[in-house]
Amino acid sequence: MPLGERGGWERSESRYCGVETDFSDDVPSLLSFNISTGGFDYVLAPLMNPSYRPSLVEGKGSETRVLPVAGSDLVLSPSQWSSHVVGKISSWIDLDSEDEVLRMDSETTLKQEIAWATHLSLQACLLPTPKGTSCANYARCVNQVLQGLTTLQLWLRVPLVKSDGDSMDATSDGLTDSWELWNSFRLLCEHDSKLSVALDVMSTLPSETSLGRWMGESVRAAIISTDSFLTNARGYPCLSKRHQKLITGFFDHAAQVVVSGKPVHNLPKASDSNTEGTQRHPLRSYLDYVAYLFQKMEPLPEQERIELGYRDFLQAPLQPLMDNLEAQTYETFERDTVKYLQYQRAVAKALVDRVPDEKASELTTVLMVVGAGRGPLVRASLLAAEETNRKLKVYAVEKNPNAVVTLHNLVKMEGWEDIVTIISCDMRFWNASEKADILVSELLGSFGDNELSPECLDGAQRFLKPDGISIPSSYTSFIQPVTASKLYNDVKAHKDLAHFETPYVVKLHSVARLAPSQSVFTFTHPNFSAKANNQRYKKLNFNLPSDAGSALVHGFAGYFDSVLYKDVHLGIEPTTATPNMFSWFPIFFPLRKPVEVHPDSPLEVHFWRCCGSSKVWYEWSVSSPTPTPMHNTNGRSYWVGL
Amino acid sequence: MPLGERGGWERSESRYCGVETDFSDDVPSLLSFNISTGGFDYVLAPLMNPSYRPSLVEGKGSETRVLPVAGSDLVLSPSQWSSHVVGKISSWIDLDSEDEVLRMDSETTLKQEIAWATHLSLQACLLPTPKGTSCANYARCVNQVLQGLTTLQLWLRVPLVKSDGDSMDATSDGLTDSWELWNSFRLLCEHDSKLSVALDVMSTLPSETSLGRWMGESVRAAIISTDSFLTNARGYPCLSKRHQKLITGFFDHAAQVVVSGKPVHNLPKASDSNTEGTQRHPLRSYLDYVAYLFQKMEPLPEQERIELGYRDFLQAPLQPLMDNLEAQTYETFERDTVKYLQYQRAVAKALVDRVPDEKASELTTVLMVVGAGRGPLVRASLLAAEETNRKLKVYAVEKNPNAVVTLHNLVKMEGWEDIVTIISCDMRFWNASEKADILVSELLGSFGDNELSPECLDGAQRFLKPDGISIPSSYTSFIQPVTASKLYNDVKAHKDLAHFETPYVVKLHSVARLAPSQSVFTFTHPNFSAKANNQRYKKLNFNLPSDAGSALVHGFAGYFDSVLYKDVHLGIEPTTATPNMFSWFPIFFPLRKPVEVHPDSPLEVHFWRCCGSSKVWYEWSVSSPTPTPMHNTNGRSYWVGL
Repeated sequence: MPLGERGGWERSESRYCGVETDFSDDVPSLLSFNISTGGFDYVLAPLMNPSYRPSLVEGKGSETRVLPVAGSDLVLSPSQWSSHVVGKISSWIDLDSEDEVLRMDSETTLKQEIAWATHLSLQACLLPTPKGTSCANYARCVNQVLQGLTTLQLWLRVPLVKSDGDSMDATSDGLTDSWELWNSFRLLCEHDSKLSVALDVMSTLPSETSLGRWMGESVRAAIISTDSFLTNARGYPCLSKRHQKLITGFFDHAAQVVVSGKPVHNLPKASDSNTEGTQRHPLRSYLDYVAYLFQKMEPLPEQERIELGYRDFLQAPLQPLMDNLEAQTYETFERDTVKYLQYQRAVAKALVDRVPDEKASELTTVLMVVGAGRGPLVRASLLAAEETNRKLKVYAVEKNPNAVVTLHNLVKMEGWEDIVTIISCDMRFWNASEKADILVSELLGSFGDNELSPECLDGAQRFLKPDGISIPSSYTSFIQPVTASKLYNDVKAHKDLAHFETPYVVKLHSVARLAPSQSVFTFTHPNFSAKANNQRYKKLNFNLPSDAGSALVHGFAGYFDSVLYKDVHLGIEPTTATPNMFSWFPIFFPLRKPVEVHPDSPLEVHFWRCCGSSKVWYEWSVSSPTPTPMHNTNGRSYWVGL
Repeated sequence: MPLGERGGWERSESRYCGVETDFSDDVPSLLSFNISTGGFDYVLAPLMNPSYRPSLVEGKGSETRVLPVAGSDLVLSPSQWSSHVVGKISSWIDLDSEDEVLRMDSETTLKQEIAWATHLSLQACLLPTPKGTSCANYARCVNQVLQGLTTLQLWLRVPLVKSDGDSMDATSDGLTDSWELWNSFRLLCEHDSKLSVALDVMSTLPSETSLGRWMGESVRAAIISTDSFLTNARGYPCLSKRHQKLITGFFDHAAQVVVSGKPVHNLPKASDSNTEGTQRHPLRSYLDYVAYLFQKMEPLPEQERIELGYRDFLQAPLQPLMDNLEAQTYETFERDTVKYLQYQRAVAKALVDRVPDEKASELTTVLMVVGAGRGPLVRASLLAAEETNRKLKVYAVEKNPNAVVTLHNLVKMEGWEDIVTIISCDMRFWNASEKADILVSELLGSFGDNELSPECLDGAQRFLKPDGISIPSSYTSFIQPVTASKLYNDVKAHKDLAHFETPYVVKLHSVARLAPSQSVFTFTHPNFSAKANNQRYKKLNFNLPSDAGSALVHGFAGYFDSVLYKDVHLGIEPTTATPNMFSWFPIFFPLRKPVEVHPDSPLEVHFWRCCGSSKVWYEWSVSSPTPTPMHNTNGRSYWVGL
């Protein structure tokens, strides 16, 4: 029975809760007890008798031998197997043992169990934690298996621990950073998308930043030991604040909780009597607590629910200069009232600065909206004029003839004919008959200049007065390194270079932000300097927090912030983002080969904005700790046409 | 005039010697002086006036501006430009300067100069040494240029220095390891094969192991400063022993010498008078010394000359089990007299051990040659019997019916009909009528077991007596990590995964061996154990010498050594290789992504020999310092058919 059914969470995979069980020959009873009685959604159960060792049965009439699996495939219906059982691969296997017989037995058993799970159409199998610090033979064997799988997912069980000392000291028996173990394993398996993590949550948790890394990894399950529960005043299990936060984080990232272990809470008798004599599942109170955590999460905001389908979904950025937007796109963007209110505030401030109160009735300000679309900035500007009691003359310049149709209707409907002049022309080529006091535009992309706002405004400033104002007056792009295994795998699935050299617009969700964002390129308007050009180069150094442990950088999240006018800004950079504005998702610049970074070695990144005669593009690379190849040389994979 | 014309060296690129010059407007005179008078083969000359700065000429009638290049293209013939001039890119350029104007000027000039060099069809241009520790913008620009080049080569000038302290301390102004600079640059340029190194040789040289790394890199030129020459008893320039050895190494690796700098030796008057008043080139005595070094090299041995064309040339390994060898292949291998002498020695020792002298006349030893081919091992065995006066009965088992034809003729011609029985059958399936005392085979590949000797001999040992002898009695494979940029680029040129997951037979030449080789898999014959199998797994740790500096591992060189019988061995592992044996070149296992290793972090490598029902294959990976993906999972790219 799913944990909850409301607030948008009913669409999350995380509403299912499992329970780890011992091996049982009688799977129907196992299911009946844990699912019907216990209320869990599925069991995490061994598929094969744990005493089985291939080397011990060899020779003994191997022709008549039957694998010691848990029941025949017929004891459950195919859909029961698939939805109620996650296979637990024998935990004794040790593929990196020095003992060759154990190693061979382990490999044989692993392959037999996964073949059996495939035969049963299970959705997933749990791989036991690698036994030592070395896991290459285990990874080799799993990687061989992965090549043959189509639907079965493999979850590598990894304890959620991290040593406080220097990481990965192979000679000590102390705890090491389990992330390193996972990282080695998945690199050896070449980021196979069918390989994910199941984290064992213990009573002790590593630092926040260390935990944060996992939010960008493919974590499918959090296995919570009953040991890690505290006891509340009424004697019931509960979790510490930090554990609660962690579990809520997993819920938010579509990871499922699995309850594991023996009951360690002696529940008050009163509670037992409630069950009226029927058998109560010994872990029921743990499940109830997990369900309570799930249900007490805030419902998702309306806009968030609308955008659920966009989470971690890669979109090619718009090319509004080369392509004309469609009506639906205008429709979406025009609904962003917050954005236009900011524009209105900026225009109002500019009007007041431009025309003192005492001249408000005599002076008319010439305002040109360049890239007027279907008119939202015209409306915002007129509202600003009304608000400030300033006289306004508006030119609405728009290159898309289809939008111009709507613009004409708008002007007629609103009765703006005397104030607004519509110019159906590309702003870069229009010969204006007079010069503007204020130039208003909304040409920014997720990365600020990536939709060629600089080039457009360089053209438009020809008809701006020397002391005129551009709204926006400047904008800056930002990047930060992220772990984003889902995005990386989606890019990799295309199996070509071009997709690795393309920045994507994407609503980042399953992403770990590894360091605060830093500014990349800034453009200021107007810019009448003769030497001005729009090429840019920026070198950035990012440092991971010292308690974070190592992490894998799959690419860079990109944002922008824009000064519309003086203190009126607008942007999506996380720490300063304009609230409730939805016009822009972040941008994601992938790396062809993810780079491992350590807290003690900064990540040095280079971004270039390159300009050719007919196109503009970015190139990027990492030079430290390990150099990557240049991305998108000469704009070979991605560019924006002029 | 080339440095020399003998001993096989006349086929090496290294016989050409250049001279570095200043900028000159008068290129014909420059050539006349340095080539006709001086005796050099080419000049390394700036292409553009060093005072040129694009930002200074901007605006000043840019329409009528002409690039300040050294003469028009017409002052030399196309073939003169191409064979006598290597372009020297302006050494003032600094693309990673903090000064944006200098950075932009540098980029413009670099691109103009390379465009000019391309216009002149020059073979190569020398790129100046990066100015600081950071070179990302320089690399980005060069990488852009490289995409458009077809024949022009770019040589990055790098000083041959290495600090003694910790490498790459970005804050100190001390010398750093120049290899790191080169490595960053070429990684950023993604190993472009048109980008190579020109090493500046100074008077101080780093350690031998540090120098050794460069032998696996793409070094095209060694620029020797006149400062680094010593003075001999007669006042002439000469080089230290270590310099001599280094330069000879470069000659051997097809790198050209360029003499650079002002003359620093005051030659005795007597020598000047020899020139009979005509102008003598001030650097002539340096050239003469370089030519002397070239000419005093040992001529290449005959076998080495025959194999010149195979140097660093990748060959797919043989599949002798699936494919039948051709006559020409038999022909080549049969000429390897050293190999068959070793077999004769081994058989002789086995015969003597098997049959004491006193029983020599009564006992007949049954010897089976499995995989007899056209008969060389039959002959070697009979010679051994003759030598030891032992009586022999030989079965010659051969699966290739074409070779059996030759075998029949041989037996008839030699009159061996009473001693030799020919069996035209695959040894794995032959039902022998009696059992053998000695089983002789030559089924080894460059990596020992890679041509399935274990599987073949497992089949053949059915007809070996329980106390019988197999010759070879065991064999072991070896690997060592290598820098091999040429091989890596040749593999990469195929642009697919399969070629990166294939081991190649190759005569390794331009390769730096980074650590001593270590044993991988051993097979022993006969092996009557019931549990025997031919799967293998080996984990190896390699440590670079502490004074080597870092290096890039492009893959692994593989070898074998085989114990034929007791102390008679045969193999190609470099430290124990059988002299003058030419049947096997080493094998090369590439890495999909080269791994950078440092002396303080060992390289952990894993090799697997995997066996399926119809094929055998290797998988390999690196797990430390950075994990690579598994190579050749499930034998998807390379396998040997059973």
